[in-house]
Amino acid sequence: MVHRIARVLEVFGTDERVVSVSEVARRADLHVATASRLIEQLVSVGWLQRDEDRKVRVGVRLWEVASRASPTLPLREAAMPFMEDLHAVVRHHTQLGVLEGEEVLFLERLSARDAVINLTRIAGRLPLHASSSGQVLLAHAPAELQERVLRGQRRSYTRHTMTDAKVLRARLADIRKEGYTICPGYIDERATGIAVPVRHGGDVIAALGVVVPNDSSARTVIPALRAAALGISRAVSH
Amino acid sequence: MVHRIARVLEVFGTDERVVSVSEVARRADLHVATASRLIEQLVSVGWLQRDEDRKVRVGVRLWEVASRASPTLPLREAAMPFMEDLHAVVRHHTQLGVLEGEEVLFLERLSARDAVINLTRIAGRLPLHASSSGQVLLAHAPAELQERVLRGQRRSYTRHTMTDAKVLRARLADIRKEGYTICPGYIDERATGIAVPVRHGGDVIAALGVVVPNDSSARTVIPALRAAALGISRAVSH
Repeated sequence: MVHRIARVLEVFGTDERVVSVSEVARRADLHVATASRLIEQLVSVGWLQRDEDRKVRVGVRLWEVASRASPTLPLREAAMPFMEDLHAVVRHHTQLGVLEGEEVLFLERLSARDAVINLTRIAGRLPLHASSSGQVLLAHAPAELQERVLRGQRRSYTRHTMTDAKVLRARLADIRKEGYTICPGYIDERATGIAVPVRHGGDVIAALGVVVPNDSSARTVIPALRAAALGISRAVSH
Repeated sequence: MVHRIARVLEVFGTDERVVSVSEVARRADLHVATASRLIEQLVSVGWLQRDEDRKVRVGVRLWEVASRASPTLPLREAAMPFMEDLHAVVRHHTQLGVLEGEEVLFLERLSARDAVINLTRIAGRLPLHASSSGQVLLAHAPAELQERVLRGQRRSYTRHTMTDAKVLRARLADIRKEGYTICPGYIDERATGIAVPVRHGGDVIAALGVVVPNDSSARTVIPALRAAALGISRAVSH
């Protein structure tokens, strides 16, 4: 039963905010009658809301329940003052990601109104090999996860995406030595991602990243990025 | 069944992040065996996580599902650039709240490290009569909600909390006329809350507020607060 409810709620995504009952049933692989009954119950506890045309969307109540006790909130609260200062300097995107399964999950993103293109979204995911935050998390991930990513399929976003296993393996070693990664044009030719680790004790618990225009000045933000990550690491450690 | 799952997840709050199975059962008013079985299923879909001592907490996966399609995300994303600028000027707390039931629910809060005391939390709630954001939302709420709050019990936090129905009714009229409210010492004697409405078309959809020290300079932030709210209103309207 919990699995069915999870399948219903997982239909809703960044691009599918408002979905009809029949579409929920189709995507969750449930009979329309079953989906309809579950949706009715989810509406009654406020986890879903009815929208125009009887379509449904995620309710504010679900966000509240999930957020107030979320394990991500203390990290995010510790990080925000440093992210704001960094963002004031960078004036493009500043973001915080954690390892979730075999992807990076973004907990927070600060963006300027005229910033460079960025595929990252709050509560959105990107593959580990292609994104700068992902590479930092992968470099410090358990060996078996690294091997699984190095052996698996690696999606190519542009001709610059780092899909070659040997090149990626060398990059992961560089990240552990140098403490940062820079990914010009890996996801969009116009943008460069740069990321550094955030630590708690000895463990890497998150990646702090920026997305800036893909030009020769991108590297200049690295010192500010590293300083912000050190500040967050200190804030979460006490 | 959905109601039971909702009762289990609603046990977890800002102050009860990690809870034992027997405590979940007690607070959700379920048999331990029932709670235990539901928790096991919730862990299997990643909505709960096991912690030290087999206690449980909300899982990152639930936050992800609830956040990525949350109806609050577009408003929050439109508001953030203006909130950051306002926060850079105010250097205390800047927060965004919406009406949920008979309370204000806070979607976002930006705080400086040495800011004045503030009871507001992200995904936390406050009563409408006592908080500045709540008063703004109440002033523009349906008449029946206003009457219910004016007739009901109104909690007193300090000797300054606006609990008197006649005084509160006059304040709501003032807010509609003046476009802001100022609440010195209503929730904590050391702090002053000030809030203004955020509109979408003609409707008030949120309140933008600051919490600053309770002194004679508090009022000086009102023009910056109003300008930020106008900016957010413009950003959400297109």
